[in-house]
Amino acid sequence: MVDRIYNFSPGPATLPYSVLEEAAKDIVNFNDKGIGLIELSHRSREFMAVAEKTEILVRELLSVPDNYKVLFLQGGASSQFFMVPMNLLGTGKKATFLNTGVWSKKAIKEAKIFGEVEVAFSSEDTSFNRVPEDDEYTVAPDSEYLYLVSNNTIYGTQFAKFPEKDIMLICDMSSDIFSRTLDVSKFGIIFAGAQKNMGPAGVTVVIIREDLLNRTPDNVPTMLRYQTHADKGSMFNTPPTFAIYCVGRVMNWLKDQGGVAAMEKRNQKKAALLYGAIDGGNFYRGHAEKESRSMMNIAFNLPTPELEARFIAEAAVIGLDGLKGHRSIGGCRASIYNAFPREGVEKLVDFMTEFAENNS
Amino acid sequence: MVDRIYNFSPGPATLPYSVLEEAAKDIVNFNDKGIGLIELSHRSREFMAVAEKTEILVRELLSVPDNYKVLFLQGGASSQFFMVPMNLLGTGKKATFLNTGVWSKKAIKEAKIFGEVEVAFSSEDTSFNRVPEDDEYTVAPDSEYLYLVSNNTIYGTQFAKFPEKDIMLICDMSSDIFSRTLDVSKFGIIFAGAQKNMGPAGVTVVIIREDLLNRTPDNVPTMLRYQTHADKGSMFNTPPTFAIYCVGRVMNWLKDQGGVAAMEKRNQKKAALLYGAIDGGNFYRGHAEKESRSMMNIAFNLPTPELEARFIAEAAVIGLDGLKGHRSIGGCRASIYNAFPREGVEKLVDFMTEFAENNS
Repeated sequence: MVDRIYNFSPGPATLPYSVLEEAAKDIVNFNDKGIGLIELSHRSREFMAVAEKTEILVRELLSVPDNYKVLFLQGGASSQFFMVPMNLLGTGKKATFLNTGVWSKKAIKEAKIFGEVEVAFSSEDTSFNRVPEDDEYTVAPDSEYLYLVSNNTIYGTQFAKFPEKDIMLICDMSSDIFSRTLDVSKFGIIFAGAQKNMGPAGVTVVIIREDLLNRTPDNVPTMLRYQTHADKGSMFNTPPTFAIYCVGRVMNWLKDQGGVAAMEKRNQKKAALLYGAIDGGNFYRGHAEKESRSMMNIAFNLPTPELEARFIAEAAVIGLDGLKGHRSIGGCRASIYNAFPREGVEKLVDFMTEFAENNS
Repeated sequence: MVDRIYNFSPGPATLPYSVLEEAAKDIVNFNDKGIGLIELSHRSREFMAVAEKTEILVRELLSVPDNYKVLFLQGGASSQFFMVPMNLLGTGKKATFLNTGVWSKKAIKEAKIFGEVEVAFSSEDTSFNRVPEDDEYTVAPDSEYLYLVSNNTIYGTQFAKFPEKDIMLICDMSSDIFSRTLDVSKFGIIFAGAQKNMGPAGVTVVIIREDLLNRTPDNVPTMLRYQTHADKGSMFNTPPTFAIYCVGRVMNWLKDQGGVAAMEKRNQKKAALLYGAIDGGNFYRGHAEKESRSMMNIAFNLPTPELEARFIAEAAVIGLDGLKGHRSIGGCRASIYNAFPREGVEKLVDFMTEFAENNS
């Protein structure tokens, strides 16, 4: 194994080293067949088996019910911001949104093109430092769905529990899918870009309840209709074969790690270590309110921007990389997705303790 | 080097072996930095340099004029079928199409959602076995553009010369971009999926004249506006980093091979070898009319479907793989893109001669 840095990047992010090694081998010579993985026709028996295996593992690991389709699309979660309302809204139709950060704001903007939008909650006034409890907002009557972002990468907030309202949920889970168990049947659509917990950038997993497939207005282009991709097993056109392969390998690794429930416990412990370091003194301050804290992204500040810059630079020198916070809120951020090793968190905690002692 | 088969697949297709080896190394340890290529943040200095280098090489190899943007998008050429008319047409606006195969038919279908469509030529009646000469059709007055597919993968036809009409061309070059020199200034938009001459599936190169960026109607979603991606250097959202990296490495390889003009000569010679084998007797019949023959995809038939099946099976046994024709026209097809080695063509020609002798 090569000497690896600890990569706290928010995405694309750290992947299991074993997956990188598998991909490296298969890219040159897939299954020793004398052809590279990325040279395989998507219609070949070999690649069809890869795609099928990937879908089976996604279904198994998230306990996806039989009345849901699992799609592998392109265009990132950003394309789902408009595809969801383009397929599910229309003149006179309404949706309710929880505005918990930049990504929900972007989704709200796109939904307004296709229907009525009700923003039932926003934490924008407090730099998106929290997500709501159920009793803080009301879903607009006649809404088609309630839209939320389960984990807000930039601010380090996360819904500890999903809303329990009498309405179908649509959820952007880009930054915490497969990090914890959940009940898929509460959701109409779950979507997530792969580049945090699933694989490389370039594929978006969409889990969609089958009865939603035929609601699309007539004038929507073929490629933007969920039905198109559901009918063809995500092979209506050439899919991003390499990214789908990698998702399959990451899913396989996750299964080997004990699955989502086991991973959730490990994620809780990793996050607790870091939050412990933040709460252990007066030097560090967490950005998110405690009840809204994320297990995936820990955003925090030091006493001054100068100290933050020095903290980030000194950390990088000892192989703790990518700790700079998002430009919209500044400060520091540690992204510790499924594949981020506990040892890296421990090393960061040690460094935080030392840095606070040296700079208090 | 591993023992490689000759892969005649129409796409994803054969890539330069040196690129596969580079990718394999960088996936595990990019530039020996202790981080994998697909783990790099798209905002990192390292990946920004990869993306920049890729664009520079695309521009250099195709002599792209300064008033054109080069974009790296997702969703395949199939997404351009609707993005082009969504951005350039609208109520009362018209475009003229040349219908030379399945891919132009699909583009015509999507364009009809957004404006008026005139089909000025179609070879559908003769199984798309030819493309038109300039004097065979008229561009409808007041058309915004003339749309064509430069090379038709399924039927093995190709425009030997691009139309010389007094109108902006929009061209799907998915299966022959970088295979021959061309004058980009004749085109408003050139687009191409990467998975034939440029790299793996998962990225689409769009070369667009800058004055076309601001014609988009107001109600088009942010992600579907060319301007969005042009403004952000294709980094409005997370781009498919691995696919962009690979395109860059393939471009680098192409430059090492002498560039597009040198590659064009090699492609002509490879294709001539195969067409020579087809024309050398009465056993094989080319699908395309001679004037419309493609340098990239050679579609041909044998005397009977039974012989075709045996031909394909026996060829596979000796490492000549992927010779089955597209299901829509049957028969055989050899796709010999830039990276397909001349030795593979020679081996196929030898096999064709032997097979004809044994089965005549």
